[in-house]
Amino acid sequence: MVTKGRLEAFSDGVFAIVITLLAFDLRPPDHEVGVSLASALWDLWPAYLAYVVAFLQIGVMWLNHHRLFQQVRAVDGVLLVLNLNLLLWVVVIPFPTAVVADYLRDGGNDAATAMVLFSGVLVLNAISFVALFAWITHDEDIIGALPPRAVVRAARVRFGIGLGAYFGALVLSFFVPVAALAVHAAMALYYAFDQATVSNEVTT
Amino acid sequence: MVTKGRLEAFSDGVFAIVITLLAFDLRPPDHEVGVSLASALWDLWPAYLAYVVAFLQIGVMWLNHHRLFQQVRAVDGVLLVLNLNLLLWVVVIPFPTAVVADYLRDGGNDAATAMVLFSGVLVLNAISFVALFAWITHDEDIIGALPPRAVVRAARVRFGIGLGAYFGALVLSFFVPVAALAVHAAMALYYAFDQATVSNEVTT
Amino acid sequence: MVTKGRLEAFSDGVFAIVITLLAFDLRPPDHEVGVSLASALWDLWPAYLAYVVAFLQIGVMWLNHHRLFQQVRAVDGVLLVLNLNLLLWVVVIPFPTAVVADYLRDGGNDAATAMVLFSGVLVLNAISFVALFAWITHDEDIIGALPPRAVVRAARVRFGIGLGAYFGALVLSFFVPVAALAVHAAMALYYAFDQATVSNEVTT
Amino acid sequence: MVTKGRLEAFSDGVFAIVITLLAFDLRPPDHEVGVSLASALWDLWPAYLAYVVAFLQIGVMWLNHHRLFQQVRAVDGVLLVLNLNLLLWVVVIPFPTAVVADYLRDGGNDAATAMVLFSGVLVLNAISFVALFAWITHDEDIIGALPPRAVVRAARVRFGIGLGAYFGALVLSFFVPVAALAVHAAMALYYAFDQATVSNEVTT
Repeated sequence: MVTKGRLEAFSDGVFAIVITLLAFDLRPPDHEVGVSLASALWDLWPAYLAYVVAFLQIGVMWLNHHRLFQQVRAVDGVLLVLNLNLLLWVVVIPFPTAVVADYLRDGGNDAATAMVLFSGVLVLNAISFVALFAWITHDEDIIGALPPRAVVRAARVRFGIGLGAYFGALVLSFFVPVAALAVHAAMALYYAFDQATVSNEVTT
Repeated sequence: MVTKGRLEAFSDGVFAIVITLLAFDLRPPDHEVGVSLASALWDLWPAYLAYVVAFLQIGVMWLNHHRLFQQVRAVDGVLLVLNLNLLLWVVVIPFPTAVVADYLRDGGNDAATAMVLFSGVLVLNAISFVALFAWITHDEDIIGALPPRAVVRAARVRFGIGLGAYFGALVLSFFVPVAALAVHAAMALYYAFDQATVSNEVTT
Repeated sequence: MVTKGRLEAFSDGVFAIVITLLAFDLRPPDHEVGVSLASALWDLWPAYLAYVVAFLQIGVMWLNHHRLFQQVRAVDGVLLVLNLNLLLWVVVIPFPTAVVADYLRDGGNDAATAMVLFSGVLVLNAISFVALFAWITHDEDIIGALPPRAVVRAARVRFGIGLGAYFGALVLSFFVPVAALAVHAAMALYYAFDQATVSNEVTT
Repeated sequence: MVTKGRLEAFSDGVFAIVITLLAFDLRPPDHEVGVSLASALWDLWPAYLAYVVAFLQIGVMWLNHHRLFQQVRAVDGVLLVLNLNLLLWVVVIPFPTAVVADYLRDGGNDAATAMVLFSGVLVLNAISFVALFAWITHDEDIIGALPPRAVVRAARVRFGIGLGAYFGALVLSFFVPVAALAVHAAMALYYAFDQATVSNEVTT
């Protein structure tokens, strides 16, 4: 079987690459006659915004992935496949990010389409993560000692609320695309600061 | 000599990067007048399909690569070269994937050419993997204790059938390209679920 | 919590990928009629210069990142977020590098804009690094034994001077873009050779 | 100081990414009216050839890098800078590879220019590697116990011959570009098979 260590290293590699490729989609604007580079750079704001939001989403997912795996003590076949399924959706994120960067400013139907794609991919990421979480916490063989029921239930409630918020952003994408992007940004910032308030722990 | 640990880490890095670059080939469609973004995105279906199939193929190859190396206890020069040869073909996979994404919808000869290229590269990957497997299992110096003959023979039969299926898909590519892609998808899903049914084992 | 080891591995991965993607922005010049490839390659000098400067900046940042983390013994939430913030800005570096490569030769306002962007991103990197450094050295829980006050003060003076130099280059970018790039190159070389004069130490 | 382990991991990451990005330069040919995909794919032969040669060169450099570092027991500042210098040139390799892929078929001066660039970058890689090797083997503090003089002298002769061959290919590039590429291919294959004949050794 694949050991936990190599599975973590492989997943870390994928997270690190996706987070870096995201920014690689920021390309210099074309030389256009009569338009200054400065104004061409300002016009890329949807690209910057989409980049930051996607970066935070992937960063937070990486943190949660790590926390989850710290409790895993055995890797089984289902876990492997569920983890590959998560990575499949993580790795896709630069695609809707680039679509949003290209189409959000145009407004109208295309902006809505772009945001629906973006929100949809994030929903699929969230579902894949919840599936992984549910599998890992369902079985003492995988997680060593099951955490207290209350803890698991609390985590499930948390994930449920998160999923709900992603679905809400998906619905909002159809109508007010920019607002949906703002919701994603707010959620990413919330999660990031939430991480920062976790009490200090000594680790090695 | 190169140690097994660094060889595995290097190979893992390559697998993680290829699997991520694959998805990076999904590019926003061009702004075309009179075509909605939504329909332009639908038209990319061969790209999505090719991405998922190639992702699963590489994912499964990574799993098998890891399992194989867990039994290796000594790395010799031939093994190094055979492993580099495998990586050379793994790393090429995004190229035929992008060709299929660009040409499958056109139909006709070009679609067939694209699928022949795709299937051909997968056949070369399969051959390279079998060569690595054959070298590792032929010698007690490399693999520690040779597994029982029956086990090796069973594994060889398995690989033989797999190779046969890849060749079948290659032949099919000349005539019904979409069907050949479907065969690759089915094989990848079969292997992925096959992995999931491996009995749980506790590892660290 | 995320362990120090996995945080370092993740950061290393990001540094390694950014440093490699940088050079991937060096693209063959277009086939233009009546212009030899040799002269088209010479015309890319701003791209080569920007690449080398950005490579050295990231390389030096990686070295300092590693030195800093060697003293860390506990990872808390704030540290995680500050590190993600640093990576967010590191990963952006290929973007202004590509803008400089495209616009520096044009001269005029666009060249100035390009260098302001480049210098601005490096300033944000420097600020993010100082924030990380300040957090790590403010607390005995994180850094084990706090280094002697004189050492910390000396390091802060050093970083302050560095930040000042980056701001100076930022201001210079508005007026003499090429000179600003030269300042960045000089700073990167200074830091690189500074590293080389650190007295030998035996490590494992 | 940076530990040997993290230096190796960082270098491995860079090697793995470069080797993968190389192949990512293989792009589907444009849809051209009246030209079949099959013949457009054949016309990419310089790209395939350049890819394989560059892949083998980097692969062999990775193997030698690893062997060299296995003997290192202390990392000093000069070694760090020499290693960064090597990586700077390794990471550039996809650029001349892409130039050769684009211009070799054109023949004439541009093909010669492309091959001179390719050979020149490989010469700079070889010089950087020799500098690293010379530094590592000059000092007992770095390498633990210096190998017997005869061994070091033999290695230096080997490297000298290698450097000479690279310079020869560089000169040949001015006159018969395709022949120069063939020389690089031959050298890469020679080194790869040379690795394969190293006697088996048990490692972990």
